[in-house]
Amino acid sequence: MTVTFDDVRAAQGRIAGAVLRTPCLPSRTLSEITGAQVRLKFENFQYTASFKERGALNRLLQISDAERRQGVIAMSAGNHAQGVAYHASRLGIPSVIVMPAFTPIVKVENTRKLGARVELFGASVEEAGGHAREIAAREGLLFVHPFDDAEVIAGQGSIACEMLDEHPDLEVLVVPIGGGGLIAGMATAAKVIAPDIEIIGVEAALYPSVWRLRRNLPIEAGGPTIAEGIAVKNPGVLTLPIIERLVDDVVLVDEAALETAVLMLLEIEKTVVEGAGAAGLAALLSHADRFRGRRVGLVLCGGNIDSRLLSAVILRGLVRTERLVRFRVSLPDRPGSLTQVTALIAKCGGNVVDVGHQRAFARISVMQTDVDVTIETRNAAHAAQIRNMLAAEGYAVRSLDEAPSSGGF
Amino acid sequence: MTVTFDDVRAAQGRIAGAVLRTPCLPSRTLSEITGAQVRLKFENFQYTASFKERGALNRLLQISDAERRQGVIAMSAGNHAQGVAYHASRLGIPSVIVMPAFTPIVKVENTRKLGARVELFGASVEEAGGHAREIAAREGLLFVHPFDDAEVIAGQGSIACEMLDEHPDLEVLVVPIGGGGLIAGMATAAKVIAPDIEIIGVEAALYPSVWRLRRNLPIEAGGPTIAEGIAVKNPGVLTLPIIERLVDDVVLVDEAALETAVLMLLEIEKTVVEGAGAAGLAALLSHADRFRGRRVGLVLCGGNIDSRLLSAVILRGLVRTERLVRFRVSLPDRPGSLTQVTALIAKCGGNVVDVGHQRAFARISVMQTDVDVTIETRNAAHAAQIRNMLAAEGYAVRSLDEAPSSGGF
Repeated sequence: MTVTFDDVRAAQGRIAGAVLRTPCLPSRTLSEITGAQVRLKFENFQYTASFKERGALNRLLQISDAERRQGVIAMSAGNHAQGVAYHASRLGIPSVIVMPAFTPIVKVENTRKLGARVELFGASVEEAGGHAREIAAREGLLFVHPFDDAEVIAGQGSIACEMLDEHPDLEVLVVPIGGGGLIAGMATAAKVIAPDIEIIGVEAALYPSVWRLRRNLPIEAGGPTIAEGIAVKNPGVLTLPIIERLVDDVVLVDEAALETAVLMLLEIEKTVVEGAGAAGLAALLSHADRFRGRRVGLVLCGGNIDSRLLSAVILRGLVRTERLVRFRVSLPDRPGSLTQVTALIAKCGGNVVDVGHQRAFARISVMQTDVDVTIETRNAAHAAQIRNMLAAEGYAVRSLDEAPSSGGF
Repeated sequence: MTVTFDDVRAAQGRIAGAVLRTPCLPSRTLSEITGAQVRLKFENFQYTASFKERGALNRLLQISDAERRQGVIAMSAGNHAQGVAYHASRLGIPSVIVMPAFTPIVKVENTRKLGARVELFGASVEEAGGHAREIAAREGLLFVHPFDDAEVIAGQGSIACEMLDEHPDLEVLVVPIGGGGLIAGMATAAKVIAPDIEIIGVEAALYPSVWRLRRNLPIEAGGPTIAEGIAVKNPGVLTLPIIERLVDDVVLVDEAALETAVLMLLEIEKTVVEGAGAAGLAALLSHADRFRGRRVGLVLCGGNIDSRLLSAVILRGLVRTERLVRFRVSLPDRPGSLTQVTALIAKCGGNVVDVGHQRAFARISVMQTDVDVTIETRNAAHAAQIRNMLAAEGYAVRSLDEAPSSGGF
């Protein structure tokens, strides 16, 4: 049992109109930065902000009337939950979504709002999955798997049809791998439409399941990642053989590359992606040589990133590029000292955004105080210029390299 | 002298291929929230992240060979600067951009990177403009006005052609007004393509220039606004008569509505807009009655928002919706007190993101300490639940309503 190109084309026709045909646009700036000719497929523009709707809908459109009346069930803490809940409700099919007990409540609320009955269960995805299977058996509900299902895979494949119909000159598709449904579907379609196309999978370095399987290494995966959406330990029984047959290579991207890619898509492309949605760009940044000069299609597969996390990514990016720096300056503890320092910084064009005094913990004379000044600069050279100027004026000054810790956000 | 529909159609053809034909997509969620049927035109996807390229390019494509060799000059601290610099460089035309001396250096750098010679001058836009005129006269450069120029207006109008060619059923266009170039061009085209269409202009409440002129009130405008791009005191000599003739109404939006709209476009539409780019949605939110049930096109006219400002908008939004709250709890100053409080919060599903102790400034017994706990919640009801639970456990607790001040960001 596998998935054919005809299955994908049929899915494409079946779901058309009920999922968005998302834009696929060239990025001149990302092309300049990576050396590849980059085209971006904005699946983060779907109603529930991820491609998962495609597979879920394709599955839901092919169940029997009896199954429709009885309802469906899925296990997911994320985008699959929303995709199933939304399209089931739209089609008048009752849905139950089982989520692990620790699921952030905003995701629970979002899924409820889409019309699903949400059951919280278990300390892990595995436990929640087992519970979902139990409920499915007990209540006679159809289980919609997030990736290991031929119709789900065929639905996800419709993305490749849209990309290649619109941009037949693409030479490489770079596709994130979690359970493998997206890449299996896309590869099935792409290799028929454009037999010479190269399909490169991307995994988070902390979850290198397919990468390790291809090297006959035992699966080792785990740890907190910004790319939750592809933090899957075991790829599917159905997806893995398709990946082995059709995917040319799998590359890994570390957390730093994922975080940088999220920020670049925000600052340059003005679009919000979650960690998994940035994996394709992270691959281009981390493995530039293999993509240089080629026409590369990336799937921005999802945009569901927590707002506070996004804010942290922005601020950490400013710190990393030294557009936000923190200097510790030792000052005499008397009126006017602080004014002199802030005036010097202003003269250099730095914008002071925070000042904190360290007295009890400062290892200097009690007649002095350490002042931590956080400054907005235009770049690292500008930051160095401000620091050198303070030193030249006789202040003891040192950089505090850590990311802004104040407030925890 | 005015601008005709033929001018706009000619501009559309002239600039095609060199500016992006941006997507125009329906938004189901914003439609549900506003009660209108909302379609968004993503001009923030242009290479320099604003529509200004259209007018600038249409102007640059119509200068003489002698003018091309001599070069062009513009005055702008923002999007027009980048639009002129980019297309001039692309066409091999030397460009000078005059910016006020206080322009954020990141904008100066961006404009330089696009190939322009940047001159910083003057304490105001007026002074910089005067200086640009002087340089233009002295060096024989062609001055490219940001809005009061028939070819610039015609270029901006091409947006309306794209929107109405693609969505001929639009009933209303909501368009931000700064100097008026965008709305003048769009109205010129739209009223010919779809004579019954309504054109509504939006101004920031702090810069209500056209709104006041229509009421025969003297112009009063000023103050810091998140919508810098439309913070223009005097609309153009060319644009104003077109606006008077073709724009059906002008509405105002306050800073809170602009900020909310920026955040909604980020969180819901997954797209980054600057304040002016959110003005259309702010108008729908602030004047919902007049748009309810109608097919409304909004122009997301620009995406150049400072990253630190965007991060502040996100965090302030979390505070406003009580997804981030700060409680001051009075505790005995001894081991274990803090653990009891944080354990209670965790039991309720709150996520503690910051703890700060107030001793010297607390107006309570010296044996107690005030602890400010910042907590991530799922919504206002959840925040109230946590607060009530702490009170029920006997803690003196009060809300600290101010936005997170720590770190200044």
